Amino acid sequence: MFYYQEKLINEIVPDRPDPAAAKALQEILGGHFGEMRTMMQFSFQSANFRGPATEYRDLIRGIFIEEISHVELVQATINQLLDDSGSTSKADNTGDPALTSAVGDGLTYHYIIGAQSSLPVDSSGNPWNGSWVYDHGNLVSNLLDNLVLEATGTLQKSRIYEMSANKTMRETLAFLMVRDNAHQNAYAKALETLGVKWGNVLPVPDYDLKQYPECRKYIERGWNNIQFNFRMDSTRIGEIFQGTSPGRHGGTLSMAEPPMGFPVPVLAERPIEHSPEIPTVGKDPLFTSRV
Amino acid sequence: MFYYQEKLINEIVPDRPDPAAAKALQEILGGHFGEMRTMMQFSFQSANFRGPATEYRDLIRGIFIEEISHVELVQATINQLLDDSGSTSKADNTGDPALTSAVGDGLTYHYIIGAQSSLPVDSSGNPWNGSWVYDHGNLVSNLLDNLVLEATGTLQKSRIYEMSANKTMRETLAFLMVRDNAHQNAYAKALETLGVKWGNVLPVPDYDLKQYPECRKYIERGWNNIQFNFRMDSTRIGEIFQGTSPGRHGGTLSMAEPPMGFPVPVLAERPIEHSPEIPTVGKDPLFTSRV
Amino acid sequence: MFYYQEKLINEIVPDRPDPAAAKALQEILGGHFGEMRTMMQFSFQSANFRGPATEYRDLIRGIFIEEISHVELVQATINQLLDDSGSTSKADNTGDPALTSAVGDGLTYHYIIGAQSSLPVDSSGNPWNGSWVYDHGNLVSNLLDNLVLEATGTLQKSRIYEMSANKTMRETLAFLMVRDNAHQNAYAKALETLGVKWGNVLPVPDYDLKQYPECRKYIERGWNNIQFNFRMDSTRIGEIFQGTSPGRHGGTLSMAEPPMGFPVPVLAERPIEHSPEIPTVGKDPLFTSRV
Amino acid sequence: MFYYQEKLINEIVPDRPDPAAAKALQEILGGHFGEMRTMMQFSFQSANFRGPATEYRDLIRGIFIEEISHVELVQATINQLLDDSGSTSKADNTGDPALTSAVGDGLTYHYIIGAQSSLPVDSSGNPWNGSWVYDHGNLVSNLLDNLVLEATGTLQKSRIYEMSANKTMRETLAFLMVRDNAHQNAYAKALETLGVKWGNVLPVPDYDLKQYPECRKYIERGWNNIQFNFRMDSTRIGEIFQGTSPGRHGGTLSMAEPPMGFPVPVLAERPIEHSPEIPTVGKDPLFTSRV
Amino acid sequence: MFYYQEKLINEIVPDRPDPAAAKALQEILGGHFGEMRTMMQFSFQSANFRGPATEYRDLIRGIFIEEISHVELVQATINQLLDDSGSTSKADNTGDPALTSAVGDGLTYHYIIGAQSSLPVDSSGNPWNGSWVYDHGNLVSNLLDNLVLEATGTLQKSRIYEMSANKTMRETLAFLMVRDNAHQNAYAKALETLGVKWGNVLPVPDYDLKQYPECRKYIERGWNNIQFNFRMDSTRIGEIFQGTSPGRHGGTLSMAEPPMGFPVPVLAERPIEHSPEIPTVGKDPLFTSRV
Amino acid sequence: MFYYQEKLINEIVPDRPDPAAAKALQEILGGHFGEMRTMMQFSFQSANFRGPATEYRDLIRGIFIEEISHVELVQATINQLLDDSGSTSKADNTGDPALTSAVGDGLTYHYIIGAQSSLPVDSSGNPWNGSWVYDHGNLVSNLLDNLVLEATGTLQKSRIYEMSANKTMRETLAFLMVRDNAHQNAYAKALETLGVKWGNVLPVPDYDLKQYPECRKYIERGWNNIQFNFRMDSTRIGEIFQGTSPGRHGGTLSMAEPPMGFPVPVLAERPIEHSPEIPTVGKDPLFTSRV
Repeated sequence: MFYYQEKLINEIVPDRPDPAAAKALQEILGGHFGEMRTMMQFSFQSANFRGPATEYRDLIRGIFIEEISHVELVQATINQLLDDSGSTSKADNTGDPALTSAVGDGLTYHYIIGAQSSLPVDSSGNPWNGSWVYDHGNLVSNLLDNLVLEATGTLQKSRIYEMSANKTMRETLAFLMVRDNAHQNAYAKALETLGVKWGNVLPVPDYDLKQYPECRKYIERGWNNIQFNFRMDSTRIGEIFQGTSPGRHGGTLSMAEPPMGFPVPVLAERPIEHSPEIPTVGKDPLFTSRV
Repeated sequence: MFYYQEKLINEIVPDRPDPAAAKALQEILGGHFGEMRTMMQFSFQSANFRGPATEYRDLIRGIFIEEISHVELVQATINQLLDDSGSTSKADNTGDPALTSAVGDGLTYHYIIGAQSSLPVDSSGNPWNGSWVYDHGNLVSNLLDNLVLEATGTLQKSRIYEMSANKTMRETLAFLMVRDNAHQNAYAKALETLGVKWGNVLPVPDYDLKQYPECRKYIERGWNNIQFNFRMDSTRIGEIFQGTSPGRHGGTLSMAEPPMGFPVPVLAERPIEHSPEIPTVGKDPLFTSRV
Repeated sequence: MFYYQEKLINEIVPDRPDPAAAKALQEILGGHFGEMRTMMQFSFQSANFRGPATEYRDLIRGIFIEEISHVELVQATINQLLDDSGSTSKADNTGDPALTSAVGDGLTYHYIIGAQSSLPVDSSGNPWNGSWVYDHGNLVSNLLDNLVLEATGTLQKSRIYEMSANKTMRETLAFLMVRDNAHQNAYAKALETLGVKWGNVLPVPDYDLKQYPECRKYIERGWNNIQFNFRMDSTRIGEIFQGTSPGRHGGTLSMAEPPMGFPVPVLAERPIEHSPEIPTVGKDPLFTSRV
Repeated sequence: MFYYQEKLINEIVPDRPDPAAAKALQEILGGHFGEMRTMMQFSFQSANFRGPATEYRDLIRGIFIEEISHVELVQATINQLLDDSGSTSKADNTGDPALTSAVGDGLTYHYIIGAQSSLPVDSSGNPWNGSWVYDHGNLVSNLLDNLVLEATGTLQKSRIYEMSANKTMRETLAFLMVRDNAHQNAYAKALETLGVKWGNVLPVPDYDLKQYPECRKYIERGWNNIQFNFRMDSTRIGEIFQGTSPGRHGGTLSMAEPPMGFPVPVLAERPIEHSPEIPTVGKDPLFTSRV
Repeated sequence: MFYYQEKLINEIVPDRPDPAAAKALQEILGGHFGEMRTMMQFSFQSANFRGPATEYRDLIRGIFIEEISHVELVQATINQLLDDSGSTSKADNTGDPALTSAVGDGLTYHYIIGAQSSLPVDSSGNPWNGSWVYDHGNLVSNLLDNLVLEATGTLQKSRIYEMSANKTMRETLAFLMVRDNAHQNAYAKALETLGVKWGNVLPVPDYDLKQYPECRKYIERGWNNIQFNFRMDSTRIGEIFQGTSPGRHGGTLSMAEPPMGFPVPVLAERPIEHSPEIPTVGKDPLFTSRV
Repeated sequence: MFYYQEKLINEIVPDRPDPAAAKALQEILGGHFGEMRTMMQFSFQSANFRGPATEYRDLIRGIFIEEISHVELVQATINQLLDDSGSTSKADNTGDPALTSAVGDGLTYHYIIGAQSSLPVDSSGNPWNGSWVYDHGNLVSNLLDNLVLEATGTLQKSRIYEMSANKTMRETLAFLMVRDNAHQNAYAKALETLGVKWGNVLPVPDYDLKQYPECRKYIERGWNNIQFNFRMDSTRIGEIFQGTSPGRHGGTLSMAEPPMGFPVPVLAERPIEHSPEIPTVGKDPLFTSRV
């Protein structure tokens, strides 16, 4: 059973609207290697787990729980990047179109389907697809697949990082790159308990996270080697997530309390998009004008 | 941010394996109107919510959180229905195939992709699709869409109920039909606050849940008019979910603590499916034989 | 603009329910080479037509209009094959499941999504897909593509014909095979006006329709060489659809009035599927029992 | 059975080519809530209808028939917006590319697959998908779903309206917004006959159509409260579509004859796209040059 | 550039028709982890390779080339399993349907789309999807992904092996399990050159191939540690594929000439499926009868 | 069985990077009528061929083999068009984003999924789909379908040719247009052997290839009437591919040796995309910096 408090796992740093960045970030939310897939893949792998070695199940499930908060964080980031990217009010008297930004570099869906907000699609507008989620029903296959998933997640984030200098986008990417690193460590360490020695190949990509200015503070807190514990009962995850980090950057793996959380940004109403548009109750019929 | 304790929101009642029932239940998990969609649809609608009327956002989010536990419950139910449906051990000496049940009325995927366990697909094997999730960016559209979603969820469950007398399947369906009823009430009530009077049209379908033997105990507890609260902080959901139930069966809406939870069934190892198959560490190479 | 009268273009011959035949027939409705595609492909090709040679546009459009009635005919045929295939009333007192036929050779969707009725999917349950529709924007490509489409439609129908002796299924297939033959003739003749001589290769497949007992009466009426005219204004289709038939069976092409039409079968209510379930208005709340 | 006369249900107002507007309009044609879905959803719901309350079936079918003409209208509108958007003749002697507009803000498909013409895809190029069509097999579910469908159709059109001032695009959107309003009224009224009172929540969105200049003439004709009758035989639709409009704007529902219809615009040949390109018959081989 | 000789890479062992086995085998051909994906994934990864370390590109390309022959082998195996599974001639005089096997445990597509022959779909009939193919653009990610791909291929084959005792099916699976083992070794060894030590975790699954009777002869030939060389020019693959095998079963990796090849089975005509049906040229029109 | 030598079937002519051209060319690689489909369609049709008329099987197979090299050529062309389209080195000290070209007219996938390289998707980013491949199991249907496929391939290439003057793009298109012409001739000739006379309708489109400057040299070599033979054993293809060309441009069909082949361009490393990034072995941990 799942519980919730209304806080984001990391801060949304304000900056200008950036519809093209929002489009690119959809890959991280609804793409083949995005957060929706990590969430659902680890959900199925932990729910379907067999046998008594529950320390592996607890590891996968522990990351699954955090991923639900990652989905929420990327949704909020995309919303921030889109918000106010069209006209903020209804069309002015000149009759000029208010949503021309919808037909430029952005994703048309963002303005037609929703009201400048996130969607379960990737950066090309392709909907998230359940065939991407894989529970192989075999521990080694699952751990290797999960390692590829986290590694590719990091890789794609490091590429999107180069597509815009927008601070809203980069802060979220930086946080997630550090956490993906921790999750790479988790799956790599689990394979280490089964006999694998990784040498210098991890993490993927072969970067120094401290070179990303936004990553530094997270690295200083050691968040690349920490697993947040969102369990309200006991878990065996610490039996695996401990000792020397399997990545080339070293460090020691340990469990920690979750971040204290950050407020969810408030999204203003967008009348031009008819959002959310609460009908007036118990009054005369309401006639909203366009202009 | 999301938290977890390892308990199911309802009990898994044991019965014989039933691969055909497991196949039908996939519609409830990964289908167009299944629990994965309710979970993701309410996730996007609450994350993307605009404006100050946060009682509506809290209502949608409150149901979203419960739906994560519904996904977990249906995964566990499908697993129970599949488990032990092939041979439980490696093929016997006669050489007879161990997994012929995979090529009968069941879903072939259940035995090839995973090891007799749940998948993010529907009853015909079609993968879950992100285009089904809809945040219209408009409150009335969202509430009506969500009402259709919950109503259809109930409707499909009541049809699948007639496909097998298997107790594992029917108990989970009965619980979810009662909860879908509560969620229909939630969205119908939200529309009532905006001026709609429902008369006798709800709930859909036009049934008396007490006629389903497994539903009776839940109705007696009033769970068709209760919203479980999985929030660890405050929520405005009670501003809407209160007063007379909008459905024809009457009653009073109120908030309640979540169920106490039930243990997640332990799934035995399935060597014939190579699951989970923990490689031996620090020993001589292991040579597992088939027979 | 389109007009309608509630008649089917051909008769539904009653026979026993046959869910497996209904499943196979879905290929003819929602498959890659089914009636939904012919309808939409000819719709796009005629709407997008360029230039003054409107006799070709009128030919394509004329067949498009008939295809809308073909879609309606196959929907009705599938409905007839499914109807009464589960229990016709609510579950009896023994508590035995009423819809076990849903989990046998049939398509599970037919009983879960709808109430024993047709769907826009193919025989494997895959949804109809817009990428199958093609308007090449070039006349020769379009005519050749349409010829392949009609030929394959016939071919698939002749194969499904061999899958069941059910009269409901075979009568509809026989009518459509004769009409597909006429439409093959139409596209082949259009190519003939551009210079192609077909020799003996048409129609595909290389059959004698009179060997199918149900086809004989249609052949005797000459329906393999007739194009029904559903236009309420004038059309140039007859400039092409005239003269010697391009197929090996010979005959003369000519226009004709549409068939007189046949009544749409009435589908009884299916309470066990909650269909259609009209809520009672202005009365006390209704409590429908399952038993 | 379906009949046709070659007239559009509304006028195509000429304006400049606008490939970006054509791209956005594809959502209205081939999107999740576009005209192809309304057409097919109402087709399946009316064909699959059960029981004697045929006034509801006739209502759904009546709207279905009009939707076929809506599909035709949007196809023609997209064609008008695309036409002449590349070079109108073969590439000039400078060798400059003639179709660079294809690789800008427009949809590449519009120039590669077809010859500057409409397609069964949405605004992001995703093909129309049969899983979007839903016949729940239950009257209340169907009516609510259809209401959401018409409401979202209007909502999306009002957003696309803000994306360009192009008159071709805006006139078609304005007409369809008024008709969607009428169809919202139809489904809302049908639910009213079952006991629902809508208060002020309809129509969605909460707009005054008269604020859209192009809508005014249609509102003055009362087309938001009229159902056009395309039946050539009798229909019971008027038993439902009568009396006070269920929307907040009031008025009285009534049936009417269809619009008189408008000519389908003639699309010129596009040699650079090889469209339609009629091969010369009975002459020497033709060698068309590019320049 | 690619060259061909008409030989299969392994023998097709004859046995009875087995449509259910053919259906399961489609997963190996057109599934998420089937041969079509391995072929295309390695095609893209080798074509897109960057930088001077071409020994890795040659390794990936070398396996790519072999996979084209694997696709051909699985196509031939499915064809053998399907062939003669319906009636071998046209329907007899009793009028009994000839293709009832199409509506039982098999895949309906196999009889409707083609004439008892293979298709680019998986075991549930879902079409092969390009989103499964992944070139991460990063060597470590690619090698790990390819290792998961080969491991899962083996795992699924070992499960399908248990679904039927059919010799045609089992021989092909046995050959491919041994080859997948060799390809696991190739990717694991490539990672070893980058520093990874695998301990006992490979191959996946943790089996002894010699326990599968059909595998023994291939193991005795050492084919689990051999890479066939289909290059007609030089290749650097041997710089990686050499030395001790990275799997727990040991042995030494080495290059070898391809197998000598086996004849492609001849498929008889199937008149009842109209296949291939050569029209008669230069004769009187042909009237093929059904009976 | 398939063999390979590392040469491209045609030359890659260098020019500037052109991400928009690369996006358009994806239609030719992974689109509905692209080279991946031709390759797989002819693979299935030749593998599934029935009966003794193997000259037709050999024709289809011969074209299949060449298509594998076409896929390779288009992959290399897209890579050339993308390469160096972002910054070639890591972000400069100004902190300006290096991959802004990814969020302009190009395909975002090209920079996020891979490192500026080709993908199995079409020009709108939709993944290649197995439902497009068709083996009708009937010779005439297959030959007609293949003719449409080759004709549409040419048609689309001639349209993309007009989208950019980039030499890299145009040279590959020109070569493939000539080869598609040869393949149209092959399928048209095969139908001619069955009795069809084509008159002037072929090839599609109705162009004179010599008007495309890049095509002239290929036409002068007669490559529009030549079938390259990639078979290492004997083939009956010459029994069909001989005599007068069925197209309006005349000429004589004949077999020929394959082109001598051209070197595959070397793609430089792209550190900013982490490609390919070989981890250092046996050294101190590597810390790559971003700047």
